[in-house]
Amino acid sequence: MSLRLLDHLGTTDALAEAFSDASLLASMLQFEVALARVEADAGIIPEPVAAAISRCCVPDVFDSSALARAARTSGTVAIPFVEAIRTRVAEVDPAAATFVHWGATSQDLMDTGLVLCLVRAARILAADHERLLAALRRTAEEHASTVMLARTLLQPAPPTTFGLKAAGWFGAVSRSGARLFSAFEEACLLQFGGASGTLAALGSDGVAVADALARELGLAAADAPWHAHRDRLAALATACGIYTGALGKIARDISLLMQDEVAEAAEPGGTSSTMPHKRNPAGCAIALAAATRVPGLVAAFLAGMPQEHERGLGGWHAEAGSLSALVQSAGSALAAVSDVVEALYVSPQRMQRNIDATGAVIFAERAMMLLARSLGRERAKHLVSRALEAHRAGRNFADALAADPEAAPALMREDLASLKAPESYLGSAERFRRRLLKIEPE
Amino acid sequence: MSLRLLDHLGTTDALAEAFSDASLLASMLQFEVALARVEADAGIIPEPVAAAISRCCVPDVFDSSALARAARTSGTVAIPFVEAIRTRVAEVDPAAATFVHWGATSQDLMDTGLVLCLVRAARILAADHERLLAALRRTAEEHASTVMLARTLLQPAPPTTFGLKAAGWFGAVSRSGARLFSAFEEACLLQFGGASGTLAALGSDGVAVADALARELGLAAADAPWHAHRDRLAALATACGIYTGALGKIARDISLLMQDEVAEAAEPGGTSSTMPHKRNPAGCAIALAAATRVPGLVAAFLAGMPQEHERGLGGWHAEAGSLSALVQSAGSALAAVSDVVEALYVSPQRMQRNIDATGAVIFAERAMMLLARSLGRERAKHLVSRALEAHRAGRNFADALAADPEAAPALMREDLASLKAPESYLGSAERFRRRLLKIEPE
Amino acid sequence: MSLRLLDHLGTTDALAEAFSDASLLASMLQFEVALARVEADAGIIPEPVAAAISRCCVPDVFDSSALARAARTSGTVAIPFVEAIRTRVAEVDPAAATFVHWGATSQDLMDTGLVLCLVRAARILAADHERLLAALRRTAEEHASTVMLARTLLQPAPPTTFGLKAAGWFGAVSRSGARLFSAFEEACLLQFGGASGTLAALGSDGVAVADALARELGLAAADAPWHAHRDRLAALATACGIYTGALGKIARDISLLMQDEVAEAAEPGGTSSTMPHKRNPAGCAIALAAATRVPGLVAAFLAGMPQEHERGLGGWHAEAGSLSALVQSAGSALAAVSDVVEALYVSPQRMQRNIDATGAVIFAERAMMLLARSLGRERAKHLVSRALEAHRAGRNFADALAADPEAAPALMREDLASLKAPESYLGSAERFRRRLLKIEPE
Amino acid sequence: MSLRLLDHLGTTDALAEAFSDASLLASMLQFEVALARVEADAGIIPEPVAAAISRCCVPDVFDSSALARAARTSGTVAIPFVEAIRTRVAEVDPAAATFVHWGATSQDLMDTGLVLCLVRAARILAADHERLLAALRRTAEEHASTVMLARTLLQPAPPTTFGLKAAGWFGAVSRSGARLFSAFEEACLLQFGGASGTLAALGSDGVAVADALARELGLAAADAPWHAHRDRLAALATACGIYTGALGKIARDISLLMQDEVAEAAEPGGTSSTMPHKRNPAGCAIALAAATRVPGLVAAFLAGMPQEHERGLGGWHAEAGSLSALVQSAGSALAAVSDVVEALYVSPQRMQRNIDATGAVIFAERAMMLLARSLGRERAKHLVSRALEAHRAGRNFADALAADPEAAPALMREDLASLKAPESYLGSAERFRRRLLKIEPE
Repeated sequence: MSLRLLDHLGTTDALAEAFSDASLLASMLQFEVALARVEADAGIIPEPVAAAISRCCVPDVFDSSALARAARTSGTVAIPFVEAIRTRVAEVDPAAATFVHWGATSQDLMDTGLVLCLVRAARILAADHERLLAALRRTAEEHASTVMLARTLLQPAPPTTFGLKAAGWFGAVSRSGARLFSAFEEACLLQFGGASGTLAALGSDGVAVADALARELGLAAADAPWHAHRDRLAALATACGIYTGALGKIARDISLLMQDEVAEAAEPGGTSSTMPHKRNPAGCAIALAAATRVPGLVAAFLAGMPQEHERGLGGWHAEAGSLSALVQSAGSALAAVSDVVEALYVSPQRMQRNIDATGAVIFAERAMMLLARSLGRERAKHLVSRALEAHRAGRNFADALAADPEAAPALMREDLASLKAPESYLGSAERFRRRLLKIEPE
Repeated sequence: MSLRLLDHLGTTDALAEAFSDASLLASMLQFEVALARVEADAGIIPEPVAAAISRCCVPDVFDSSALARAARTSGTVAIPFVEAIRTRVAEVDPAAATFVHWGATSQDLMDTGLVLCLVRAARILAADHERLLAALRRTAEEHASTVMLARTLLQPAPPTTFGLKAAGWFGAVSRSGARLFSAFEEACLLQFGGASGTLAALGSDGVAVADALARELGLAAADAPWHAHRDRLAALATACGIYTGALGKIARDISLLMQDEVAEAAEPGGTSSTMPHKRNPAGCAIALAAATRVPGLVAAFLAGMPQEHERGLGGWHAEAGSLSALVQSAGSALAAVSDVVEALYVSPQRMQRNIDATGAVIFAERAMMLLARSLGRERAKHLVSRALEAHRAGRNFADALAADPEAAPALMREDLASLKAPESYLGSAERFRRRLLKIEPE
Repeated sequence: MSLRLLDHLGTTDALAEAFSDASLLASMLQFEVALARVEADAGIIPEPVAAAISRCCVPDVFDSSALARAARTSGTVAIPFVEAIRTRVAEVDPAAATFVHWGATSQDLMDTGLVLCLVRAARILAADHERLLAALRRTAEEHASTVMLARTLLQPAPPTTFGLKAAGWFGAVSRSGARLFSAFEEACLLQFGGASGTLAALGSDGVAVADALARELGLAAADAPWHAHRDRLAALATACGIYTGALGKIARDISLLMQDEVAEAAEPGGTSSTMPHKRNPAGCAIALAAATRVPGLVAAFLAGMPQEHERGLGGWHAEAGSLSALVQSAGSALAAVSDVVEALYVSPQRMQRNIDATGAVIFAERAMMLLARSLGRERAKHLVSRALEAHRAGRNFADALAADPEAAPALMREDLASLKAPESYLGSAERFRRRLLKIEPE
Repeated sequence: MSLRLLDHLGTTDALAEAFSDASLLASMLQFEVALARVEADAGIIPEPVAAAISRCCVPDVFDSSALARAARTSGTVAIPFVEAIRTRVAEVDPAAATFVHWGATSQDLMDTGLVLCLVRAARILAADHERLLAALRRTAEEHASTVMLARTLLQPAPPTTFGLKAAGWFGAVSRSGARLFSAFEEACLLQFGGASGTLAALGSDGVAVADALARELGLAAADAPWHAHRDRLAALATACGIYTGALGKIARDISLLMQDEVAEAAEPGGTSSTMPHKRNPAGCAIALAAATRVPGLVAAFLAGMPQEHERGLGGWHAEAGSLSALVQSAGSALAAVSDVVEALYVSPQRMQRNIDATGAVIFAERAMMLLARSLGRERAKHLVSRALEAHRAGRNFADALAADPEAAPALMREDLASLKAPESYLGSAERFRRRLLKIEPE
């Protein structure tokens, strides 16, 4: 039964594949085969048994609906899954069936299976992350001197550059990505502890088998089983949340810039079913939807952390759905924002026009500071108010000041001129941009 | 691509079906067919066109992966879906293709499609809800006089009855279910507003067409389109959350009673992959997992509420996944708890034994109250402390009091006797039980 | 120690007062006095004892920092609080001290104390809610014929009226308010169950005393103690969340309309510390902040629902902070949005100008429908595309169509005219507006 | 107005102090004084002006209620705060008033003020963190060979050691603490960007002044202003969440061990208001309450991340309350768990007794593995089932096997003996314990 459409923006084809039944089953089979292999190498189970298990661990024997149904009475899909392998092995070699899953517990299988899916997902995200960083850097470089309105609390403010804006996005994505991929690395560990987390069934060979199993699966070994200690996965879950938040900020900015009345930037977007003229910000929608949803998914994951004793009840059982949704949300937003930024249309003309349309009023603070130096704050305030009134009546604020018999003499000619020259009031914008992009020397 | 296994406890077969691609596509087709039908009836589109559309709206033409992929560039699956129908209709009757989806917008289609899936889900939940209420009532009736320890802050307290405990569960499920099904009813409305929520394309016929369309689909009509006003769906989302919380409380209680050291009740449970002796509380695990996850999913839904203008960006796009996960979580927990309660094993013997094992110390409060009446609080405190010390040394607390030269005379014989008779210290337990079950006269 | 500033936008003076230490202590004293009173009336404790307790229950004896500190070792402030009253009563009448808090448990006191604070808060919210509904209705009436752009996915769409927009806000606030106040009513119950929820210490008088106590406190009586069944409070918590979400939607819309480039509406707002020209949307900021925060607070409340046995550990202890923050967030947003809407500046001129600035392109859908009727969808699409190209080159879309040799003849003269007359393309906007405001006849 | 009592378990005295009005005001004053100082040093404002500002920046001039009230119309407390300082400076030196807050924006002040409070809080947490780690290590060392039941899904499982259990707690706290304190370090940066994040008012001196200001305040400098990029604070928020989750797990375990029927460990706890015999797990309650609440608070923080343009509306305004609640929740839980672990009562006797009470049934898996080696899985299963039946009838499982005519010969004498010797079935428990404590050589 396919379940893609209802939440079709929450993942990509590649990520849906990484967490699909096929991917999980492949991971679980990989675990059982590798386990038999290393146990045979360690002399714990007979070598031919490992070979038999290996031959029987093929994906096509599983009916995932039946597994899911059976899981409801056993509390985990691991039990019907292992049973199915045992049955198959028993047909080939009855004695070998005993040794399937030898010394492992259900959670070893499920956690490691999930981790192997995560490894696949991490690779997909890593590629898009590099793509996005490159596109952001390119944008930030191209528009180093593109002057635009800053906007604070959704109101116009003194200018900034689009280059700095893009560099700010770059900085946040870069930092959040570093956190994310280091969290993937920390979390992608083998789980292997047996029934009680002591590997008791393996006697004194436990640690050696665990280390060999990790190597066999290409995973790092943990210092100890982590059945009920989920902080590493939690760190991955939260890193997905933060990363998606950083992407959501980009999408919010672009969707606001793309408003018809602003029109400073636009993603290629999609078409509307009813409105042929309309370019829907579909990429931003995907990213904003992800950013809307991830905080709750993070909460869902964290809520399960206080797991009981050696293996918990309920908290653990709640995790996989939330974590895979988080990784897919992050990746879906990432793919969308990468596409958006790579093809972003930017209009420096419109940016300039929107600055002009403010009638220089965004420089009121600056005028105030310039006037206050010689006239004091109270007088400056008064003169600025007077010019603002003129502005409300339709006049350019700078012109109003220039015409003001008290204000004009208090301002130097270049000051007055600069009130109409946004590019001269950018402060450290360029240095901040270079710092964010780690361009040396700043 | 199937995606059941990773989160296999988060739904049931029936609910997965209700939110499957097949179910959603059927709902969407239902919408388009009904729309064409009522528009033809109203003379807005030609009658043969409606017939052509109706004939072409068959499920087998859709490739849901392709739809999902296309949706990423248009921001919604509605656009490739409608395009696919148009193509098909055009093959049969080129002129008719124009009238597919006439006057409707993507969100009309998607919201109504979701609502039709919700209607199906509500029916599934309703059946299990009745089953659970019946099982809870039966349990509360059977065990009206089964005395057991109350436990507060996970410590033993004066006794209660298992009947009252089950009646408390009944009360919470009953109230939460009433909220849930009334929320379903409130939320299951037609969405129909056209591009801007004015049904402008239908001229003055909008309201009439909308009302006819609602009738045709068996849905209630809304007072107005609710594209960006999601409070009704939010009320459904939160009702799922509360309902699941009430189920989680039952599961928590039963899983605690099922601990080997307590052993007062047990669900049939499932078997362990490694521990043949073990009965895993699989039903409780499912319910507790759902209760762990739903609060975050509720947050995910609510976070999208402040949707922009006439139709929002991102907030809306985040909803369907969260809402369907909430309904499925609630339903998965409900099915599990219903099974658990229906087959619940209860041990009045063990309940009695656990009371006895406390050595009457749970009556320390009662002894204090009895003693304080004649001796004052300070003296009573002292005597109770003395008996508690004896208790810590291994003696029955009531016996220690009875042997205390100062305490004994201050207590009436029947008081002393009653300190060892938990069934005589149940206060209003039975009246509360009857009130909760609405048994008249109390 | 005062803790207002850090989160100074999260409450109002009145609501902070309702949940202050003073308010909570007053509520707790009210509980103890009423309890003694009804127990004396029932002959359970001596009449003079009740009088003594009543005289000693005065607010000025409590050091709330000391209480908070002591609470950390007992797990609740109830224990040091009751102890403090006992000490004081003992000074006056040593025998009476025994009867303080007679038959009640800590949670009875704390839950009822919280409920009494909630009752106060509900009154504050109710007043503002009426104020907001009135302001919204007035706005929706005044602007019944004020035509403006609809905006979907933050892109311009065919017109709507500001009256319908405001009526949509009205509808959502009205429905959400109905849910909220009914949730307050359902939740504001006496809590009274004694140690184990059986009122055992009161023998067979429990129910009668409980009912009398509820009357004395002006609260409804519960069918049974609800120590570990928190669905009613959860329903209140979620109703706060939904209500705040509906307010957040209004704030989002207004803040978007208030952008300098849109300028269709504005709240009076506040001044900026650095930008004298700037009107900060402070009211919208308060409401949006609340809407940002409440989903998580709702999750925090719901997460505590699966409480253990007769009284839970941790889940209960987490509630009060979340619930009071939710009520205060809702109330803070409500006060802010009420102020915003009451003083909302609306510019029909600017609305018209923004429509004009689209160059009629928002009617592309309409043109398509008009053309398709006679020319078929494919041809219509082609002609609309051609006109859209002209539009992108700077021409009015309707004029381009009128000049098109193929399109013009296919359109009736009034159709062509109407493409430049947004007020003629409002469909059922007015009927929807009237339905939302419940104006009869529609 | 004090607001401690309602949520009295959510903080400690020291942490409440760190986020109190007094602490925040002190931080804000520190910012303004330091700003004036470094601007005077840089020749941007006159030296005497800085001295005047410094003299006027004293805490006693502020009425925090009035500030909070005024903040509601300006959207931030910074505006009335700066205005209050200006007024005061103007009284002393009218010309100097102009230069108060020179070049800074409200958010610079509020963010840096919050950061300075966080620095104080971090110190408090660090001390308790070391205390907890020491107590956990000591416990893990003392009980290296204390054998106890493992428990999985709340059911008994083969044995583990209390030393490994405590080492598992240590590992999770240690890892989560490392994440937390590195997040504090990363997040505790100066915020300084002026109105638009370009420090335009400081001309080309912006970066130099920013770096000097950071030094003056003892904070790290940021690469660029981070007004709308909140990932570093988000990483702190989530680290608090994970840390609290790890503490919640300890509290959950201990509260379960402290159940009367288990009685393997206990915290000193508090007394009950009604039940003199009862030791309430107050410390666990505090930690579990925090763990219940933090996931939602984390969601509340993350939800605000997609902040608009250069400084956001609403998202930013929602942060401080959530973040300070998160840090206080983490710290409150930490203080409680530290107290609990430091004074933890452990009963190896009871642990042994609880193992014995299982009648060796926890070794069923082991018996199966031993039997299967020689008899095959099917036969082994049958024999184990037979012994389990005997166990259900009251017999020790190992004895039943020993008496089984088929099973006994298949088992070696020492195997049979070991089925009653839990200490011989601990696998790698000790090596895992040493790895977690980083004891070399393992």
